[in-house]
Amino acid sequence: MSVKFSRYLPVLDWGRRYDREALSNDMIAAVIVTIMLIPQSLAYALLAGLPPEAGIYASIVPILLYAVFGTSRALAVGPVAVVSLMTAAAIGNIAETGTMGYALAALTLAFLSGAMLLVMGVFKLGFLANFLSHPVIAGFITASGILIAASQVKHILGVRSEGHTLIEVVETLIAHLGETNAITLVIGVSATAFLFWVRKGLKPRLRALGLGPKMADVLTKAGPVAAVFVTTLATWALGLSERGVSVVGEVPQSLPPLTMPSFSPDLLSQLFVPALLISVIGFVESISVAQTLAAKKRQRIDPDQELIGLGAANIGAAFTGGYPVTGGFARSVVNFDAGAETPAAGAFTAVGLAIAAVALTPLVFFLPKATLAATIIVAVLSLVDFSILKKTWTYSKADFFAVAATILLTLGFGVETGVSAGVILSVGLHLYKTSKPHVAEVGLVPGTQHFRNINRHKVETHEALLTLRVDESLYFVNARYLEDLIQDRLASGQKIRNVVLMCSAVNEIDYSALESLEAINTRLKDLGIGLHLSEVKGPVTDKLGKTHFLDQLNGRVFQSQYDAWRSLTGAPRPLPASESAA
Amino acid sequence: MSVKFSRYLPVLDWGRRYDREALSNDMIAAVIVTIMLIPQSLAYALLAGLPPEAGIYASIVPILLYAVFGTSRALAVGPVAVVSLMTAAAIGNIAETGTMGYALAALTLAFLSGAMLLVMGVFKLGFLANFLSHPVIAGFITASGILIAASQVKHILGVRSEGHTLIEVVETLIAHLGETNAITLVIGVSATAFLFWVRKGLKPRLRALGLGPKMADVLTKAGPVAAVFVTTLATWALGLSERGVSVVGEVPQSLPPLTMPSFSPDLLSQLFVPALLISVIGFVESISVAQTLAAKKRQRIDPDQELIGLGAANIGAAFTGGYPVTGGFARSVVNFDAGAETPAAGAFTAVGLAIAAVALTPLVFFLPKATLAATIIVAVLSLVDFSILKKTWTYSKADFFAVAATILLTLGFGVETGVSAGVILSVGLHLYKTSKPHVAEVGLVPGTQHFRNINRHKVETHEALLTLRVDESLYFVNARYLEDLIQDRLASGQKIRNVVLMCSAVNEIDYSALESLEAINTRLKDLGIGLHLSEVKGPVTDKLGKTHFLDQLNGRVFQSQYDAWRSLTGAPRPLPASESAA
Repeated sequence: MSVKFSRYLPVLDWGRRYDREALSNDMIAAVIVTIMLIPQSLAYALLAGLPPEAGIYASIVPILLYAVFGTSRALAVGPVAVVSLMTAAAIGNIAETGTMGYALAALTLAFLSGAMLLVMGVFKLGFLANFLSHPVIAGFITASGILIAASQVKHILGVRSEGHTLIEVVETLIAHLGETNAITLVIGVSATAFLFWVRKGLKPRLRALGLGPKMADVLTKAGPVAAVFVTTLATWALGLSERGVSVVGEVPQSLPPLTMPSFSPDLLSQLFVPALLISVIGFVESISVAQTLAAKKRQRIDPDQELIGLGAANIGAAFTGGYPVTGGFARSVVNFDAGAETPAAGAFTAVGLAIAAVALTPLVFFLPKATLAATIIVAVLSLVDFSILKKTWTYSKADFFAVAATILLTLGFGVETGVSAGVILSVGLHLYKTSKPHVAEVGLVPGTQHFRNINRHKVETHEALLTLRVDESLYFVNARYLEDLIQDRLASGQKIRNVVLMCSAVNEIDYSALESLEAINTRLKDLGIGLHLSEVKGPVTDKLGKTHFLDQLNGRVFQSQYDAWRSLTGAPRPLPASESAA
Repeated sequence: MSVKFSRYLPVLDWGRRYDREALSNDMIAAVIVTIMLIPQSLAYALLAGLPPEAGIYASIVPILLYAVFGTSRALAVGPVAVVSLMTAAAIGNIAETGTMGYALAALTLAFLSGAMLLVMGVFKLGFLANFLSHPVIAGFITASGILIAASQVKHILGVRSEGHTLIEVVETLIAHLGETNAITLVIGVSATAFLFWVRKGLKPRLRALGLGPKMADVLTKAGPVAAVFVTTLATWALGLSERGVSVVGEVPQSLPPLTMPSFSPDLLSQLFVPALLISVIGFVESISVAQTLAAKKRQRIDPDQELIGLGAANIGAAFTGGYPVTGGFARSVVNFDAGAETPAAGAFTAVGLAIAAVALTPLVFFLPKATLAATIIVAVLSLVDFSILKKTWTYSKADFFAVAATILLTLGFGVETGVSAGVILSVGLHLYKTSKPHVAEVGLVPGTQHFRNINRHKVETHEALLTLRVDESLYFVNARYLEDLIQDRLASGQKIRNVVLMCSAVNEIDYSALESLEAINTRLKDLGIGLHLSEVKGPVTDKLGKTHFLDQLNGRVFQSQYDAWRSLTGAPRPLPASESAA
């Protein structure tokens, strides 16, 4: 019983060994992460089209629940840029920003996504996330970064703009360009410039001043806090909010409220696909961060348990005024670098944010939205990386095609179309590649027992014997290809009396391929030609053994290709016997 | 130029060598096929919800066009049962049976399907048909056979019934059961019983009477003609059509008319998916028949040219009052068995049917629809074959699951849902299987240079060396699996200093897998563990050579696993050097 119970509660494992040293390390990490998260949470809520406090609420209970159910020691769960954008895209078509319906839809999206993650975790469906290929993810993140940055330009200019595709955003921006507010523009541009400088120029300078690398890192991460502090002070002191500068305004001073998602079947069905995409994208982002950090300390991440941890976090967000969350890259790296040892660091961060929610919210009344937009722009532009296009172009045109299409479709048709098309393309291209497998006609390398491609090597062949090495598992997508190939080859080789299929790289033969082999066998039998197999793998032999195929085979199954050659050409044996075992 | 031209016109190849003997063989085959096709064409038009003459028209021009563009010598193109059912399902939601809109939609469907087939042929996309696995096709055909038979019961009873799923059909049948026409029932049941007897009992009896097997076959195939003749005569002589027996009625006495499909974007977009499914199913059915027959004479079928042939046939159908057609199994086998040598046999059949359309149509006025329904029921029930369930259950549970789902979904939700679900399931299950590849930890078989699974064989291992043989191509769906696996294995094997990946069965490494290998390499490097590859295939090595991966590899690439073992364990070399080349 207890073994099973603890499978779902990793906290029981690390909690038992928790000591004073781990406590102090976790506390320090928590303070640093809390300071970084306050502006970030407000900014991402803005990006998702939600009131700023939703970002803070989404960082409190979810972090606590992940600390109980998650397996990563350093992952920090909360609102992240891409998921915030996807939330805005999903809800934007359903309700108006700022309405109750919008916030309710966000809670429902978090609930649905949490439920999906939990179900995937319990049924161990974590492998589903693998259907997103790395290049597709890279392309999607790059395109999302551009979309997010573009969507924030309106706050820098102080104008209105909307849309879920790059074209829509740019069009509405241009239409409203005349309404630009000069003071907002000054704040926005200086904050952006400052934050870029902090990111690129400050760290080397701090190191030059003799600070340790860790301290320099922490100060660099505090850049947004400084920007928030200075611009808020200026806006308050100079009364800029009365001169057209949009500010965050009143944020309720409270702990996360108890909220209920909607269970309306209509809303649930409208949000089903977006929730699935958010779950998968969120899980993929989170698990890569968690694995990268765990590997550095030779720790283990259990993907299926991660699904449960993230599922619990999202359901927590749904009931406490939040919106969809996942493990964020930036916050997790800060947490790890600051020395977090266990998920307790996350729990302490939650406490810190709860204090902020109660005590500090009045202080952000005069915080300009332009400053928050600047922090988002600087954060997401670091995600934009077109080098994946060049890398995949060199390595594999199919991968290049998938990533280019994902980028273009995400920018042109929005995140949901982009990521769906990416998945479909990756799968389609993979199937296409395996649909025309590499099949080599092989011959004997003289003086050895090895068989190589007749087109690449000087090998011995025999006009009555055709040997084909199939370099792919045989399954329905390529089953007919082999039929065609053999038929073509026989049409041009009228003297062939025996065909050998060398199966050393055939990892599976599915039922369609079995039927194709039966068809090939029957056709060859009708023509008086033998069909033989060689070097068939154990699991494949086991499976074929369950059928009548081997009994009906108009030929033999040889352990090694050399055995087949000797037997079918009557050639003498040049090398000792010990070598021929498959 | 002429080479390129003749690529699209196989007629130029066989036409040049046509002689008197081929002519007489083709003529005989044409007469036999024509007699068989007259009732069949009328019956399938009825099944498609179209006026009877549409079936005849769909058999004339399409056959001629296929004779020019197709590559099969024996394929007979025209209306077939499954495509007729799919046509009814596709159009049933758009227009009422019997209206002009319905006939127009059928023409449009044929045009769209023909255009798709042509495009697929020109761009050599024939491999798309391979996405339908054999078990899914078998399940689909079986379920369609049941649906078709059920849909014809109404004609046997003389009542109304409709619907595209088994439940709908049975429900409406039961609702109208009280309206059963006794005389229609007698005709329908006797015709069905007679045709079953012809199929099962007549042939052995004819053989016993001393007839040759071919003659017995031909007489058996003429059974439907006899049924048509007798029931038509009875209906006319006894005036049964005035007593409630539905008859075919007036069929226009004319050659195929010139018709135009609709180019309304609305209709085209509504018919797009059904046309795609009809094209793929039709192509798959046709190509299997063509290949089976061609193989018997060692002839070649070019799948891409077949697409062009079928595309031309369907476009022909669209402009001459027909509906979607494909190469039919029954008619092609009869054509082949009757001695057809070239597609000219098809052209003669077309002439035969044209004569029938002009001269014989008045004779079918009193033909009862119940008789046509009987011919359909007897024909399609021979397609129903549940043995695929048992065979796949024994061989592969994944295939079983796909076929069972296809059958249930086709019966429960109609042909379009059934076949789409079958494709998605087949692809999904294949990806699932490859997502958790077979990875064996291997050790050296003592006294040899062979490496086998440590769990299956007594082998030598070394505690500082971990060797994994991956039995699958590495691509995005399983890339992360290997990462997880190595991480798990290292967590339990603290003494491991070197990891070797044995790549003898790795046929491809895509960009995602390359990134995973890079991640594994980096993680192992951080831990001071070497990562090595062995027995990498030529094409894979070429691809890796284009990247920096091999330079950054914290280890070496060994030609053979034995080289890796010797080098990494410092073991002496027990066998002669000649053997170690990969």
